[in-house]
Amino acid sequence: MSEKETEISQLGEFGLIDHITEGLKSVNDTTACAVGDDCAILNYPADRDILVTTDLLLENVHFDLTYVPLKHLGYKAAVVNFSDVCAMNGYPRQITVSLGISKRFTVEHIEALYAGIRIACEQYGVDIVGGDTSSSNQGLVISITCIGEAPNGKAVKRSTAHDTDLICVSGDLGAAYMGLQLLEREKAASAGRSDFEPDFAGKEYLVERQLKPEARIDIVRELAEKGIVPTSMIDISDGLSSELLHICKMSDTGCRIYEDRIPIDYQTAVMAEELNMNLVTAALNGGEDYELLFTVPLTDHDKVKELKGVHVIGYVTKPELGCAMITRDGAEFPLRAQGWNPLAEGNEDKSLKVEK
Amino acid sequence: MSEKETEISQLGEFGLIDHITEGLKSVNDTTACAVGDDCAILNYPADRDILVTTDLLLENVHFDLTYVPLKHLGYKAAVVNFSDVCAMNGYPRQITVSLGISKRFTVEHIEALYAGIRIACEQYGVDIVGGDTSSSNQGLVISITCIGEAPNGKAVKRSTAHDTDLICVSGDLGAAYMGLQLLEREKAASAGRSDFEPDFAGKEYLVERQLKPEARIDIVRELAEKGIVPTSMIDISDGLSSELLHICKMSDTGCRIYEDRIPIDYQTAVMAEELNMNLVTAALNGGEDYELLFTVPLTDHDKVKELKGVHVIGYVTKPELGCAMITRDGAEFPLRAQGWNPLAEGNEDKSLKVEK
Repeated sequence: MSEKETEISQLGEFGLIDHITEGLKSVNDTTACAVGDDCAILNYPADRDILVTTDLLLENVHFDLTYVPLKHLGYKAAVVNFSDVCAMNGYPRQITVSLGISKRFTVEHIEALYAGIRIACEQYGVDIVGGDTSSSNQGLVISITCIGEAPNGKAVKRSTAHDTDLICVSGDLGAAYMGLQLLEREKAASAGRSDFEPDFAGKEYLVERQLKPEARIDIVRELAEKGIVPTSMIDISDGLSSELLHICKMSDTGCRIYEDRIPIDYQTAVMAEELNMNLVTAALNGGEDYELLFTVPLTDHDKVKELKGVHVIGYVTKPELGCAMITRDGAEFPLRAQGWNPLAEGNEDKSLKVEK
Repeated sequence: MSEKETEISQLGEFGLIDHITEGLKSVNDTTACAVGDDCAILNYPADRDILVTTDLLLENVHFDLTYVPLKHLGYKAAVVNFSDVCAMNGYPRQITVSLGISKRFTVEHIEALYAGIRIACEQYGVDIVGGDTSSSNQGLVISITCIGEAPNGKAVKRSTAHDTDLICVSGDLGAAYMGLQLLEREKAASAGRSDFEPDFAGKEYLVERQLKPEARIDIVRELAEKGIVPTSMIDISDGLSSELLHICKMSDTGCRIYEDRIPIDYQTAVMAEELNMNLVTAALNGGEDYELLFTVPLTDHDKVKELKGVHVIGYVTKPELGCAMITRDGAEFPLRAQGWNPLAEGNEDKSLKVEK
């Protein structure tokens, strides 16, 4: 801690809360009363469904502060929750932010973290309405709950895909995972060297995808504008395979996707080559892209083609056909959930089980 | 871990979630869709205000598993959130439960914890609608968000007490704190002794107040039945002094409370005597009683007297008079917030700064 930094104990819990929530303004009509009481008060009209999601982020399980700046971490912690609301075809409106803070953090650290959260909220039109703050003897703990809305009955679930529906995905896949590999590589290279400068030249996109993901609220808006209501939707946090299997299992369907239709950025491909990794496996199983995976009726094919940055990668089948990818040479390759399982053995190093 | 216990890695994240949420049924009309998707879907009528609160509980900061059974911990973790909703004069309806679980916990441990949460939810008519589950390398982390309701505009804030209002408190104070002292004493006495049997004879009430607190939803119901709308309300989690100062600061008022009116149980008094502690200080500053502290207009005096287990302990004054307790001998003793501050130095041992 440098001389200019402030110990959190100087402010105490209530002082810190006052400090970091200073000047917060709500932008949503549905926020009747934000921070400062036992509860926040919200008021949603009856024609709205209310969406609730929550994410728990733990230091050295979900993030590594060696290479994740606190401001980026705050931004990402908020955005991953917004993404869950977007995955229901909804709009995020409020969040609560709970922080467990260990002794090595100063007021300035928490300011940086909170600044990232506030920037994300401003960007997405979300109000911070409450939270909890505590000391932690376990590193940094971030728990965010997000509340959002969708018109009554219009929230899109995972369980409602139908045989013959088209499978669509926004953006490109595997980049966030490759960004993580790059950051881990530079971390390893920097070990014990104070003069080390990480080299991200030509790979800025990968680093940005890992450190500053976005929720695809633009896709939710575009779907509404074009009058497309997906039959099912999920966001890709654990990898395309894993999410697609969720949709198929819950909808009681199978699926076919085409290897050559999976959208992959050029930088992702270059990085996979450098690391001698199978590119498609990384795109299938690498998590944290926070793109939207959704299905639409076959009759929406022409409308979907007009969506910017959305790719049709396959179709939904009857359940007995199972879930598979059709490779470039026409072979069928069964999909498996190899996404990051934070409760499985051997995953403490945060690396995905991406196989060659 | 005994032979009969199951490692969590055998189930993985999704397996564990499926296991612990098995057979969950929603009892509230406002719960349209509970666990199993990116978000829960709630549907509240427009004449309801929606209340949102959240609490983060960390092992060895907020609880000590040496003497807190996991089932009790689960119950308490849920109830403290319900209490925040009751503190707005509202009714809890839904919760999300996020858990960070370290390696030393087995599936059976998490079953016990979750059983406590489920019992609390059944008891209070609350639905579990979502959550997040992750590994932790930092001990147990529990983050619960509760959503509740109150009729439009009827949620009671902290900031709306008025000069001359009566100050009321439910139940009795200081018992949960004395229960903690007792548990800590028995823990110290048991150190290194495998044959040790803790002695709680005659102090069962104190242990229960600490390990199994209740949210005063009965008081919220009774207030509604009697047509009493408090002018301000808060729940006592950090101690009477601290909460009263919150109300007075936010309402821009002062207050006077009478030492001899503070409700204290006989067991609390005996324990304070045994530990050579100042009883009133413990009742003023001991936290975790989760009783309701509220103010009512002077004209409600007769109605309030009919409320079972509610005591009028003083009155609200103009702000310039400050906040004070009038002692038995008629002296004025300024109130100070000495409640547990989890972000202050020297509080790692979880002990309150209760002074003689």
